[in-house]
Parts: sequence; C-alpha cells; structure tokens
Amino acid sequence: MTSVTALVCTLTPSPAASSSQLLAEQVLAGFAEKGCETSLFRVVDHDVKPGVQKDMGDGDAWPAIRARVLASEVLLISTPIWMGQMSSVCKRVLERLDAELSEKDDEGRLLTYGKVAGLAVVGNEDGAHAVTAEVFQALNDVGLTQPAAAVTYWHGEAMGSTDYKDLDGVPEKTAGTTKTLVANCLHLADLLAKDPYPPS
Amino acid sequence: MTSVTALVCTLTPSPAASSSQLLAEQVLAGFAEKGCETSLFRVVDHDVKPGVQKDMGDGDAWPAIRARVLASEVLLISTPIWMGQMSSVCKRVLERLDAELSEKDDEGRLLTYGKVAGLAVVGNEDGAHAVTAEVFQALNDVGLTQPAAAVTYWHGEAMGSTDYKDLDGVPEKTAGTTKTLVANCLHLADLLAKDPYPPS
Amino acid sequence: MTSVTALVCTLTPSPAASSSQLLAEQVLAGFAEKGCETSLFRVVDHDVKPGVQKDMGDGDAWPAIRARVLASEVLLISTPIWMGQMSSVCKRVLERLDAELSEKDDEGRLLTYGKVAGLAVVGNEDGAHAVTAEVFQALNDVGLTQPAAAVTYWHGEAMGSTDYKDLDGVPEKTAGTTKTLVANCLHLADLLAKDPYPPS
Amino acid sequence: MTSVTALVCTLTPSPAASSSQLLAEQVLAGFAEKGCETSLFRVVDHDVKPGVQKDMGDGDAWPAIRARVLASEVLLISTPIWMGQMSSVCKRVLERLDAELSEKDDEGRLLTYGKVAGLAVVGNEDGAHAVTAEVFQALNDVGLTQPAAAVTYWHGEAMGSTDYKDLDGVPEKTAGTTKTLVANCLHLADLLAKDPYPPS
Repeated sequence: MTSVTALVCTLTPSPAASSSQLLAEQVLAGFAEKGCETSLFRVVDHDVKPGVQKDMGDGDAWPAIRARVLASEVLLISTPIWMGQMSSVCKRVLERLDAELSEKDDEGRLLTYGKVAGLAVVGNEDGAHAVTAEVFQALNDVGLTQPAAAVTYWHGEAMGSTDYKDLDGVPEKTAGTTKTLVANCLHLADLLAKDPYPPS
Repeated sequence: MTSVTALVCTLTPSPAASSSQLLAEQVLAGFAEKGCETSLFRVVDHDVKPGVQKDMGDGDAWPAIRARVLASEVLLISTPIWMGQMSSVCKRVLERLDAELSEKDDEGRLLTYGKVAGLAVVGNEDGAHAVTAEVFQALNDVGLTQPAAAVTYWHGEAMGSTDYKDLDGVPEKTAGTTKTLVANCLHLADLLAKDPYPPS
Repeated sequence: MTSVTALVCTLTPSPAASSSQLLAEQVLAGFAEKGCETSLFRVVDHDVKPGVQKDMGDGDAWPAIRARVLASEVLLISTPIWMGQMSSVCKRVLERLDAELSEKDDEGRLLTYGKVAGLAVVGNEDGAHAVTAEVFQALNDVGLTQPAAAVTYWHGEAMGSTDYKDLDGVPEKTAGTTKTLVANCLHLADLLAKDPYPPS
Repeated sequence: MTSVTALVCTLTPSPAASSSQLLAEQVLAGFAEKGCETSLFRVVDHDVKPGVQKDMGDGDAWPAIRARVLASEVLLISTPIWMGQMSSVCKRVLERLDAELSEKDDEGRLLTYGKVAGLAVVGNEDGAHAVTAEVFQALNDVGLTQPAAAVTYWHGEAMGSTDYKDLDGVPEKTAGTTKTLVANCLHLADLLAKDPYPPS
C-alpha cells in the first residue's frame, strides 16, 4: 500500500481553519480513494527547530516527522502564499530536508531517492508558480522526483482578499489539477518503488 | 521636465492589441498628467539582438532604445506573464542593460545611477510578484533605484484566461497601484536628479 | 534506443565557443556512452520567433526543433546565467513549449507526458539554483517529469569572471552531477516509456 | 544622526560564529564610520512567532525588534543561503514586516515609507541573486526603497563548502560592494528623511 505524508505549512496553529490544510486534505482524500494510506502534519503545531541537521536535539520535533516522511513513497507539501512566496514554515521544512544529502543507503543512494513529491499552494493572490519553482528545486536537490503536473493550486485575482477556505466549494480547475497530481504521483511512485534509481 | 521611457515587453508585434502595452499606456498617462515627457517602445517591433554588449552591431535596434533610456530619469518596464515568469523580450531587455555595468561617467558612476525604475506586470493568472522580484533585482544590479511600491499589476484567478485588455475598465486596485507608482517614481527621480549618488 | 535532444541557450551564435554548449556536449557524451542517440540545437542559430503557439508561421524555426523534441524521450536544456537568471533564449524556448498545453493524444494526454527533463546551467557567478527552479517549474507545467537530481552546473565565486570553457578540465563535482543527471534521466525515461502516465 | 538596524537571519543561535552575522557586522562598521548609530539583532536568539500581525501576543519578541526597525532610517537584512534560497528566519522576518501594510501615519503613508533597505547575503555556493530578488521584492511591497546596488554578498564556487567566516580576510569584491551599499543607502536615507514621499 502506498503511503502519502502531507506537511502542511500554514503559519496558523490548530485549531484555527487553514486554507493550505484544507487543500492538503482534499489532495489526501484523492490519494485515499486510490487506496493509499495517508497522514498529515500541521508543522507549526510541532516544535521544529531551525537548522540543517536531521536532529537538532533537545525537544526537536523534526525526527518524528522525518521518520514518517522516510516511511512514505509520496511527500505532499502544502503551503500558503505570503508576499508572493512560500511560508517560513515551508522554508524550514526544506532546510530540514537538506540534511538528507548526507544520508545514504548501503549502495550509496540518498534515502529520499525513489520518493515522489507533490505540491499544493494556496493564496489570496499571486505566487503559486514562484512557490512551485522554489519548492520543487529544493526537493529535486535532495533527491525527490517531480512527476509531470505535480502541483495543485488556487489563488484569487490581483490584490484579492478571499481565502480558499471561504469559497463556495472547490473551483473546477483546482479540482482538476488535484486529480492529475494524485494520478501522476501515484503512477510514478509505483514505478520507482518497483524499480529504484541505480546507485551513483 | 522629467522624462519617462516605457519598454513594453509583449511577445506580440504591432498592431495587435496588447495588455502589457495598455497597462504601460495607463501608467504613462499618469506621468503625463504630472507634466512628464513620455515615450514608449514596443520592443518586439524592433530588432534587438541577443547579447550583453551595448551595441551588438549590424542592424541592432538597441542603441537607439538605449539612447532614449539614458536620456530619461524614469525607466518603466512593462511585461506580460507567461508560465508565471517575465517574457523573453523582457529578459532580453535586462540582458542588454547588463552592459551598463561597464559604462561610467567621469567620476566613476554608472550612467544609470540616479535613474529610478517602475514596473507594470499583467497576466491571466499568477506571476506578478515573481516577475517583480527578478526585474527589480536585475535593475538594481545595473544601478537603478526602486522607489517604495514601484509596481502596478493585474492578474486573474488561478488558471484564468481573461486578458487585462478585455476587462470592463481599470480595476480599482490596479488604478491605485498605478497612482502610487507614478507619485513615488517622480518623487525619487526629482530628489536624485538634484542630488546624485556619490562617486564610489 | 533512447533519444536525447539538447537545446543550448547561449546568447552567442556559432561558431564562437560557448560554455553552455560545452557543458551540454559533456552531458550528451554521457548519454551517448549509455547507448543513446543524441542531437543538439544551438537555438540562437535558428530563427525561433517570439510567441506561445507551436508554429508562429513565416520562417519560424521552432516547428523543426519541436519535431525533434517530440521524437525524444529526454529533453536537455542548457543555459548560461546572466544577472543570476536564465538567458532570454532559454526563456523563449520555455514560451514555445507552453503551446504543448493545447496538444493532446487520443487519450487526452499531453504529448510531452512521459518525457523527462534534464538541465545544465553555467555561469561566472551565482544563479544555478534559481535557474533550475524556474526552468523545472515551467517544464513541469507543460508535462515533463524531473528525475531526482536532474541538474548539472558550474559557477565561479561571487563576482567572478572565469568562464567554464576556460577551466583546466571538468571540475570533479560537476563531473559527478553530470553522471547522476544522465543515470537518473535514463532510468526514468525507460520506466515511463514502458509504462506511461494514465489519461487524465 | 542616521540609525541603521541589522536583522541577522542565521539559523544558528549565539554564541556560535556565523557568516551572515560577520558580513552584517562589516556592513555596520561601514555605517558607523560614516557617523551612523547602529544596532543588530540575531533574530534566531529571539522568540519571533510565526504570523503576519505586528504583535502575535504572548511572548512574541517581534514588537521589540519592530520598534527598533521603525526608529531607524536604514534596515539591513543579512541572510545565509540554504539550497540557493534565503533562510527560514529571513522569511519569517519578511512575513512579520507584511503587517506594515496595515499601519499608516496621519497622512495615510505607510510607517515604512522613507526607510531604505540594504541586503547582505552569504553562502557556500550560489543563491545571492535569487535571495536579493525575493527579499527586495518583499521589502518594496511593504514600502521600503532600494537604493542602486544596495546589496553586498559572497559565495563560493559551485558545490563549494567554504564558509565566509573562514576566509582569510574580506574578499576585495565583497569589500567593494559593502562600501557602495553603505554610501548609497546613506545618501538615499538622507534625501528621504528631508523630503518624504507624498501621501497617496
């Protein structure tokens, strides 16, 4: 059974409503329909320390999250847009994943090799493409694979102030990109699980 | 009298309608109301050669455009968004401006020092913040100054297909950012014309 | 036999030496060693028109390049860095690929689905990560897949002026990233050729 | 007397050595030589809460930092590069500054209007231009002005591992960009202090 872990990077702690959590849940529902096991961390609820080591010690919540990521075939990042950019929580997640460049299996492969990345981005106004660019670049650096069209997103018109969580239902186009994200991530995760990248 | 030159970076040659030209014209109208002299180049109509020299020789249209830019106190770049990014025409303009790093006055200052930059960005969907980031970084590198809030923009909702030129009138928020852009560019251009940066 | 097409995005026409062409040739040599068929276009030598259609008519050189790209399993983009960003030629290539969003097979899949993307970036100083972010975002948008660690690059120290083509041999780290790029692109291209993404 | 506040965005708490702190101190020394009053916050040492309000309540360290920023004419951001991008601490600072869009003086101007921004960026390898783009875009959004050439930086060769703090002395080119940053920020801060932007 394919396992999918979502890291939700809203700035707002639980239990407040969150657009990026909502979109992540919609994506996970798509994965669950296909028979996947899913889990979700709202990262700001956990004490993830700043740094670029896999364990920053002393109360660091990352090692537990990391264990779940490493046990999954698909990593879904979900982030809000602030000032046209990813959230600081999302940036912290990427920094912690940077530590994976030092972690290899017996054949010299990164532990992240073979995992695929999906992305959900949501904001009042623009930023989705720029956030996609930076998140995928960082995840590609640390060994994850990006399936074709592996991002779903929504944003309002320029200088808009509507939240995704306050829309009447899921916009048709976002529903479409969510469906494609799920299908393509799963397809590629299955292929790479059966047939991993060669040792380098 | 303050002189403003707009470089419109649509991919579409004249005489077709262009959203980025329309927004540039609206900004220039704001400058004209304040008593500025304005001019506009639709860059794709001119044979601007690839390269990073001030004159790429043999039919290169850049030297004439460059002369106008150097004779102006304000440079307005206007670009459409494609795939969340600036147009290739806009990128070419930046590359040609890169040559200014080698051009200095008698006191060792860049010829661009003292000029201020404004920006207009328009697209069906997101990209305005990312385009702003890259255009302003490049212009700052080559010696232009960015006044506070020196960008006006419009984009539609995620995966939208409406063009700015087909809207019913100017959206109120875009009208507001255009007004601020004009006021702040003019204010700073006047200050720097009277009191230039020191030689370095 | 896997086919690899490289689009070299230097600003400099042939026959002048080009760092981005050199790095592309080194990557293609890696593919050839693995038994691939390779071809290379130095895009600036061809009259690729501005626009976002698959054929801009009247002397447009893109349709011939596009035919080669569509006949290949791997697309390698190679670009120089100018002002920390990709070249305008590279941006034009991405814009022309944007047209692929309208082209689908009998089952509704993009013609680009199943193709994988590799990237080579080279500059005097910094920009490789930012260029990777933007190129991969655009290619992912239009249906290409990014294998893990699918980029090779070189740049000098801050404000450096050394060209890659003038180095004494290939830096060891760049040789390493080139090798990984080739291995991972080939592995994934083979998997996707045998087992394509599902129709959406 | 002009006041300059530096926000150092290293991921590493005091008292460990930090390259981004070192570069910030070098820039501040330049300002002090010109007679400025300077202060520095190593942000990670303070409990700056996630969020986009000026005060996130309950132990939030931002209000004290914000007070110092608002009392200064020049804001210097100094950030390390991780994965080609700014640090998560830097991103958090930008998010907190986003609150300034709601804060205006009696004439309707942002409290940040008239302040100028300088930037210091440092990393083992590339990212300085991309970080500059994003930080300046965000600061411009919230009302700060970017003087020409307002950034100083250093990075090593591609995939390098040398830290700025371990270099033998300050590289000549970085010393030069630091000097220009100081001169241009001071010049513009003086002009804007005497002659503020008009109300909008």
